[in-house]
Amino acid sequence: MNNTAITAMRILGVEAITKAKSGHPGIVLGAAPILHTLVTKHLNVNPNDDKWFDRDRFILSAGHGSALLYSAYHLMGFDISIDDLKNFRQTHSKTPGHPEVNWVSGVDATTGPLGQGITMGVGMAVAEEFLASKFNTKNLDVVNHYTYVICGDGDLQEGVCQEAMSFAGHQKLGKLIVLYDSNDVQLDGFVNMANTENVKAKYESMNWNYILVKDGNNIEAIDKAIIEAKSCKDKPSIIEVKTVIGFGAPGSGTSAIHGKPLNAEQLQEVKKFYNWNEEAFTAPQAVYDLYKEAVNNLGVKKENEWNKKLEQLKVENLDLYNEFVKAMNNEFDFGSVSTYKAGESVSTRVAGGKAVTEMSNNCPYMIGGSADLTCSTMIKGNDGNFEPTNRQGRNINFGVREFAMGAIANGMNLHGGVKSFTGAFFVFSDYMKPAMRLAAIMKVPTVYAFSHDTIAVGEDGPTHQPVEQLLGLRAVPNLLTFRPADANETVYAYQYAFNAKYPSAVLMTRQNLPVLENTSYDGVTKGAYVISEAKGSVDGILLATGSEVSLAIEAQKELANEGINVRVVSMPSTELFDMQPKEYKEAVLPKGVFTLAIEMGSTLGWYKYADEVMGIDKFGISSPLKEVVSLYGFNVKNVIETYKNSQK
Amino acid sequence: MNNTAITAMRILGVEAITKAKSGHPGIVLGAAPILHTLVTKHLNVNPNDDKWFDRDRFILSAGHGSALLYSAYHLMGFDISIDDLKNFRQTHSKTPGHPEVNWVSGVDATTGPLGQGITMGVGMAVAEEFLASKFNTKNLDVVNHYTYVICGDGDLQEGVCQEAMSFAGHQKLGKLIVLYDSNDVQLDGFVNMANTENVKAKYESMNWNYILVKDGNNIEAIDKAIIEAKSCKDKPSIIEVKTVIGFGAPGSGTSAIHGKPLNAEQLQEVKKFYNWNEEAFTAPQAVYDLYKEAVNNLGVKKENEWNKKLEQLKVENLDLYNEFVKAMNNEFDFGSVSTYKAGESVSTRVAGGKAVTEMSNNCPYMIGGSADLTCSTMIKGNDGNFEPTNRQGRNINFGVREFAMGAIANGMNLHGGVKSFTGAFFVFSDYMKPAMRLAAIMKVPTVYAFSHDTIAVGEDGPTHQPVEQLLGLRAVPNLLTFRPADANETVYAYQYAFNAKYPSAVLMTRQNLPVLENTSYDGVTKGAYVISEAKGSVDGILLATGSEVSLAIEAQKELANEGINVRVVSMPSTELFDMQPKEYKEAVLPKGVFTLAIEMGSTLGWYKYADEVMGIDKFGISSPLKEVVSLYGFNVKNVIETYKNSQK
Repeated sequence: MNNTAITAMRILGVEAITKAKSGHPGIVLGAAPILHTLVTKHLNVNPNDDKWFDRDRFILSAGHGSALLYSAYHLMGFDISIDDLKNFRQTHSKTPGHPEVNWVSGVDATTGPLGQGITMGVGMAVAEEFLASKFNTKNLDVVNHYTYVICGDGDLQEGVCQEAMSFAGHQKLGKLIVLYDSNDVQLDGFVNMANTENVKAKYESMNWNYILVKDGNNIEAIDKAIIEAKSCKDKPSIIEVKTVIGFGAPGSGTSAIHGKPLNAEQLQEVKKFYNWNEEAFTAPQAVYDLYKEAVNNLGVKKENEWNKKLEQLKVENLDLYNEFVKAMNNEFDFGSVSTYKAGESVSTRVAGGKAVTEMSNNCPYMIGGSADLTCSTMIKGNDGNFEPTNRQGRNINFGVREFAMGAIANGMNLHGGVKSFTGAFFVFSDYMKPAMRLAAIMKVPTVYAFSHDTIAVGEDGPTHQPVEQLLGLRAVPNLLTFRPADANETVYAYQYAFNAKYPSAVLMTRQNLPVLENTSYDGVTKGAYVISEAKGSVDGILLATGSEVSLAIEAQKELANEGINVRVVSMPSTELFDMQPKEYKEAVLPKGVFTLAIEMGSTLGWYKYADEVMGIDKFGISSPLKEVVSLYGFNVKNVIETYKNSQK
Repeated sequence: MNNTAITAMRILGVEAITKAKSGHPGIVLGAAPILHTLVTKHLNVNPNDDKWFDRDRFILSAGHGSALLYSAYHLMGFDISIDDLKNFRQTHSKTPGHPEVNWVSGVDATTGPLGQGITMGVGMAVAEEFLASKFNTKNLDVVNHYTYVICGDGDLQEGVCQEAMSFAGHQKLGKLIVLYDSNDVQLDGFVNMANTENVKAKYESMNWNYILVKDGNNIEAIDKAIIEAKSCKDKPSIIEVKTVIGFGAPGSGTSAIHGKPLNAEQLQEVKKFYNWNEEAFTAPQAVYDLYKEAVNNLGVKKENEWNKKLEQLKVENLDLYNEFVKAMNNEFDFGSVSTYKAGESVSTRVAGGKAVTEMSNNCPYMIGGSADLTCSTMIKGNDGNFEPTNRQGRNINFGVREFAMGAIANGMNLHGGVKSFTGAFFVFSDYMKPAMRLAAIMKVPTVYAFSHDTIAVGEDGPTHQPVEQLLGLRAVPNLLTFRPADANETVYAYQYAFNAKYPSAVLMTRQNLPVLENTSYDGVTKGAYVISEAKGSVDGILLATGSEVSLAIEAQKELANEGINVRVVSMPSTELFDMQPKEYKEAVLPKGVFTLAIEMGSTLGWYKYADEVMGIDKFGISSPLKEVVSLYGFNVKNVIETYKNSQK
């Protein structure tokens, strides 16, 4: 019966691809026995309660194999019908080209950009260890699940994956199990055209438990390997399963079958190979029964037991129970945060670091850290380092692995029960951008903190001085960027970001800034507001962000001495400002009033809001902070001249 | 005398840092014996001819150790004076915060962003192998040098470095030698807080030759290790040198010494430790003599021999000699490229692929490939695959390693003698961006080709559909982006890009596009031009790029039927347009004429050129190409409506 079930999974998958004329049949035919073994023997999920908190997490890191996933999920009873399979990759279907979390039932992470699926899996395993240590009692394990990943050769070649696997081995994430669909083929040809590593030696050197399954069609061997992986408590496991890409199809074992749908004739050949005589898009009832029984014996049963444990916890420790329920619902209370008095001088990285620490004091589910820059970014988690010997530590030393850090934090937030954040220099947001984009697609509210936000980095020079990063991030849909003007705007930005439903990037200065009058939470969260009104009628507007707001206010004073009355607007978030009603926007930036935007970064985006722009469209230079900033024109004299020249 | 020389290198380095009150003393004191051994025993460079083509390449991948490099280069006789050391990290000094190529004599690559230095080194080793196989004759090896890299723990933790090392091992780059300054410390603390790999086993599994030097102060052992590395012909070598960070300073062996300048008192302690009694910023003449002798015995002597070989080559094979001279001068002739007839229907990826192939036919120094997407991007090098057994193959299978691909290509172009290019899906430019930025900082003219340039990717869905990438790249200083409207604009874009002094990104469609009338090389290279003039007076302008230009022309026709006369402007490169004289810009986009920009990407950047924008500020969806494009408003009807509504 297992063989029939696997064939059903294979055929439904490739039928969907052939009908869509789009998709990747190779992995469907090659890796179905892996997924079949996982879901019938090990994976604890409940199709009727697909967000059950203690389910095993499962990520198809090779997201192009979506048809395999949808086929399996259909057979298991998730909310994917035969019609959904027929609508594979069609507009608004439940079966999009790559698996999408919060859209497709049972999908725990959006995958497709290679390497990130496995990395988010690492994050989920971190969250599980942390929460288990927090909520499990001597006799009740309310957090106790595995994280399974299926990945391919492409995933393992990606740097982000190598960063994450090094981290996972170091962290001894024993409940992370990676099933490596090792078929010796990638898009352009055989893997050995690009990669000839010794897989076993490599991952063992990185503190992983390596297991080989020589025949990917041998489900007993796969089962045995997973059992062995589960028994290895102090290392993550990678099970290399040797498979044949496109098994049973013309061109199997070659790259020809990787990403090209079978035509009708080839589909018939496949059906013949598997001796499959069912009508198109059907499977025998016995197959459905098999999966139903498996799911009942695994996830459904385990969830029932878990519900009892939860009841027991309620009886034994009501406080812990209540805390756990709140964590499961991601009900985080970050409490209040200290603010600063106008006139103080504080770098916003210091203010940001303090804000994150205070919020972490208030909210025990905040956990994060930096890519080996905590001493500089000031962004740190509480309660010591998260380590194999201290799973309640909330500071994560990610190592110099920015991209993995971003994706691991995303995985932690996808897991739920925790609120994860990251820290880095702003220029290295470039290294992390693909993870930030994926968070934005998924609407996973990771908070990415960045210090050293402009050329004011100073001596480190152009490689460390951001110029274009801010515009780049502002253009990412669903991602909020904040560039606060002072310590208080920084506090407000973090308060908003940690409570937001979207991911956020919060930028901080290396250098001290004056704490300003008139900042407000309301102003920051509306994206822009009048921070210093013109005396009398408004002759013009200086529109600034971050460290340039205090510069604008200085210029405003000097201009006033000359009888020129300008308004200063602080715009910490262009995205939030764009979301305001027209009336508010026009009140802050009235049409017909000359506006000069001032920001130490790319000018290109500012013409939407301003008539003229003082910005930076070239790279910085190595030079002490005050010199480089002034050299690039960001001094009071130049603001005044630029303003006055524009009026001629 | 060696000890005195090493001490001089150490002290001058930390004196520069202390004076600048900025820099990283830890690596200077810890790694000086490594650099000393390299430059006195092995490195073939000539301070008086620092661009000598067959010099050994040297990259300080741990670029924050710049003071060490400058100190050594000063002593060796490169164009760095004591005054330059005194001006370390000051405005416009020859000794910037991180080593900068083409600014600091002897620097072969700009470093600082970790992981990329070593990766560019891999690219240099590729270029050396390729050119050696092309130009060396039986008895004359005119290309025969090593590439040396000094890296630290941070470098090795970066994913890009792991991608590159996997590639280098696979490619058997035996003349690449990495000296790993292994001091067990990184910025936030001990390395074992973040990383506990078995270094030897890891790199051996990746086909590297691993050598351990237990005592980083033992220069005989370091020398022996380098000799051993050179003797290993079929593997790159990594020499792990155990050092003590900040050796001799208070706080040595800890992260306290990593990035904090010594104060005056600490500096005195260091001098005492080394028994150093010279005046500040001086070194004994004997030290200078030692380095001078070493340089004369190594690089200067080798260059003299090489000059003789070159003369010999001229005698023996004038054609080859002439070719070699042209290659060394980067005099590439890409010849002419076929164009297309208006009315044909061609995807610009096909046109781009053909253009690159034709140019490669004309220019035998073009070498590049893709990150396992050649079948889709159509970007491929000629003459088969570059492999250990075919060093003249010009197609590189980079594997699914986008970031490393970008940085390797940069390294190849930095080496010179070759013209390297890359291929990927446009959405994965995110993975490569840090390498593209570094190319832009260095003005290394790598050509980055990208297909699948918009949501018109279709079924693959939001993870594969670029939206904000184009704006992000346009904002990178010194980087040219091209979004050609049809096959001919694509040809022109590649012609310009391959001849440019800056790096370029060229975007291509997955889908077919009509070949248009009136495209021109002149128009493309001016950034924007009138591709279809209004009949009669210009009522308004449709400003479009890429696949939206043909859409605009269709809309123009329909509007004309209603008596509305609009001009259509194609703007393949906003950057090149910005460089045109004011008159040209105003002739193409006259002030006061209503302009609607149309581009399937972020709107934010278009307000600089247009009054209104049709763009995309949200993520795409999985859907067949025609459906998704129309659903997002990019159809003739919607263009016409948007235009007409804007006039109300």
